[in-house]
Amino acid sequence: MSRLTATYQLFGQAGSFGKKAEGIALGLTVGSWTDLPLLEQEQLKQHKGTVVSVTEFADISHPLKSEQIRAEVKISYPSVNFSPDLPAILTTVFGKLSLDGEVKLLDLEFDDELLSHFPGPRFGIEGIRDKLGVIDRPLVMSIFKGVIGRDLDYLADQLRQQALGGVDLVKDDEILFENPLTPFESRITTGKEVLRQVYEETGHRTLYAANLSGRTSELRDKARKARELGADALLFNVHAYGFDVLQELAEDDSIALPLMAHPAFSGAFTSSPFYGVATPLALGKLTRYAGADFSLFPSPYGSVALEKSAALTLGEELTKASGVKRTFPVPSAGIHPGLVPLLINDYGTESIINAGGGVHGHPAGAAGGGLAFRQAVDAVLNGIDLAEAGEQHAELKTALELWG
Amino acid sequence: MSRLTATYQLFGQAGSFGKKAEGIALGLTVGSWTDLPLLEQEQLKQHKGTVVSVTEFADISHPLKSEQIRAEVKISYPSVNFSPDLPAILTTVFGKLSLDGEVKLLDLEFDDELLSHFPGPRFGIEGIRDKLGVIDRPLVMSIFKGVIGRDLDYLADQLRQQALGGVDLVKDDEILFENPLTPFESRITTGKEVLRQVYEETGHRTLYAANLSGRTSELRDKARKARELGADALLFNVHAYGFDVLQELAEDDSIALPLMAHPAFSGAFTSSPFYGVATPLALGKLTRYAGADFSLFPSPYGSVALEKSAALTLGEELTKASGVKRTFPVPSAGIHPGLVPLLINDYGTESIINAGGGVHGHPAGAAGGGLAFRQAVDAVLNGIDLAEAGEQHAELKTALELWG
Ligand SMILES: [Mg+2]
Ligand SMILES: [Mg+2]
Repeated sequence: MSRLTATYQLFGQAGSFGKKAEGIALGLTVGSWTDLPLLEQEQLKQHKGTVVSVTEFADISHPLKSEQIRAEVKISYPSVNFSPDLPAILTTVFGKLSLDGEVKLLDLEFDDELLSHFPGPRFGIEGIRDKLGVIDRPLVMSIFKGVIGRDLDYLADQLRQQALGGVDLVKDDEILFENPLTPFESRITTGKEVLRQVYEETGHRTLYAANLSGRTSELRDKARKARELGADALLFNVHAYGFDVLQELAEDDSIALPLMAHPAFSGAFTSSPFYGVATPLALGKLTRYAGADFSLFPSPYGSVALEKSAALTLGEELTKASGVKRTFPVPSAGIHPGLVPLLINDYGTESIINAGGGVHGHPAGAAGGGLAFRQAVDAVLNGIDLAEAGEQHAELKTALELWG
Repeated sequence: MSRLTATYQLFGQAGSFGKKAEGIALGLTVGSWTDLPLLEQEQLKQHKGTVVSVTEFADISHPLKSEQIRAEVKISYPSVNFSPDLPAILTTVFGKLSLDGEVKLLDLEFDDELLSHFPGPRFGIEGIRDKLGVIDRPLVMSIFKGVIGRDLDYLADQLRQQALGGVDLVKDDEILFENPLTPFESRITTGKEVLRQVYEETGHRTLYAANLSGRTSELRDKARKARELGADALLFNVHAYGFDVLQELAEDDSIALPLMAHPAFSGAFTSSPFYGVATPLALGKLTRYAGADFSLFPSPYGSVALEKSAALTLGEELTKASGVKRTFPVPSAGIHPGLVPLLINDYGTESIINAGGGVHGHPAGAAGGGLAFRQAVDAVLNGIDLAEAGEQHAELKTALELWG
């Protein structure tokens, strides 16, 4: 019988967690148990939540309540209790419970039966590499910057500069919505033409992810139209919409475009150490199950930084063996070429090196910035020290001088 | 020119907030300013975010970082920067920023132009009262309990008992999803028949809110079908889907059913004192703007309790003068008849008294529990002390003896 296992972090007095866990397991399923007649227990047995484990960490105290320690409890829910969609799952395992004091949802383990209802990425890491014809190195991505209030010519020029630097992907700014100066459809057609020209000039192929935005029920048609217009990929602010909206876009065969999940708004429910959902679950596992081909998240290096172990676990959630394809990890923010050795050390080659300021802020412009990143990647993969490689490559040298 | 003003809570060193606020106002709009040529400043002026106010609370220190104090900053964003939908708004004002350390979104002020894009409740408090023919007292609501794994007969009996107690509304358990024993459509038709019978027997009308669940794109058709079948209202786990999904249901003239927003999962992004979204904004203003006719939230009285001032502000957000209709506040959890004087004191008569255990746990069953609540409401509105009223009403007396 299919089951879903949730792991929660709780704080409380040592020895108190077993009872608390039992209360959750019953409260979120059959409601009560010991006072039920045996006949009803028999009838409801298959619906009853069960406590799988209770682990107390006696040496980890609550920072503000010294009498409380940390614990992790695992509770298993029968899948028969919910429809196999993320809204039903999140409501079951963390609906009312999310409001019940300091409890954080750390993980969800789907069994194969339950996971079979989730599409995962349509393309995944292999599918994206196929599109680009790049199989042996981390991809390099850059981001449009300062494009609100600008016109199509401005965006076209910025895209051209980025592509000339040899980046593999360029994404829209996530705060660029439908607007009269640079409408979604015009961005796609203009972008496509710019990238075609760059390809003709240089032989380098760059994919452009346009921000899919607007009312929920219109997203599907907009995405289909994007595909008709030849869009390469779509950026999507999944956490401002809901996981299931992403999943429906991913499942739609008439869209069939790579989907890039942006972490906007996710900090609202992932940032607290005591409440909400763990980052590796939210931006990792669930984003992957819901069908994102790319998942952006705050890198552990910049000023908007994720805690290192969470950032690494997140990368593993996106790429470890599973019943669905792998999602490209895109650690973002605070990335400059000097960090490329660390990025490849932490995330391996099956990841994307993504920069905004680290591309646009290069003294030789976005084209120079992109080149510096590509030079850094080549150096690391060839076992060459960055400083040494900088002696051969002016753009990399400049970047290292500027950012270290 | 239309603008949206966001209020944030920050922690930091005294005197540091002006610069931080300026960084947010630029970073979430035009990106940079002082280094732009004057011509570009002229062109981008209408897109630039501005700092409205910075208020430092020198006497409120961070509980763990004593050198930091609390501040509130207000930043105004030009509406021209985003499409008038909640995903675009949340991404603009709290997209990347939600990931940027300890910052909490406290409030959003929509001007009239922006608010005109939001429907608000279709029925509102007046519309719901019209349906029930009850204008002069708080409504009383109860909740199905322990219905997972049960069949239609069980639900029908539970509904009948609740309605016989004189409650005005009964809602589904939010964790009851599509299932073979009690499918959504059968719950509606069976519920309708049960409530028709009770009405014939007693002359009392009760509305039943069925849980609208499933995949996002199927909700609209399911809701239309519910209407065809004569459903009274729909319960909706809006925070497991997204505000815009609720809004699209509210806007749809072919659905046109009262919508009851459940707070499931909302604790994930409202509970932390440092991160996420303030409860009165999330479960109050935004739930109202998105079109909920009822908003359930944790009462400030029970064990799953909201802090009192937040719970009261939330009630105000749902009912204060605005360009949209009023939403019924439904403080929930831990409610028993003895709390009715406090509930009416705190939320007035334009609210709903909602109980689960306080109805079903009554020694005379759910019917007795409902009666006790109705007796308590009548007593308070007639200025009669509850204990005194208990002398006239056995059900109320029993409830007071049991729960105080
Ligand atoms: Mg951005
Ligand atoms: Mg419930």
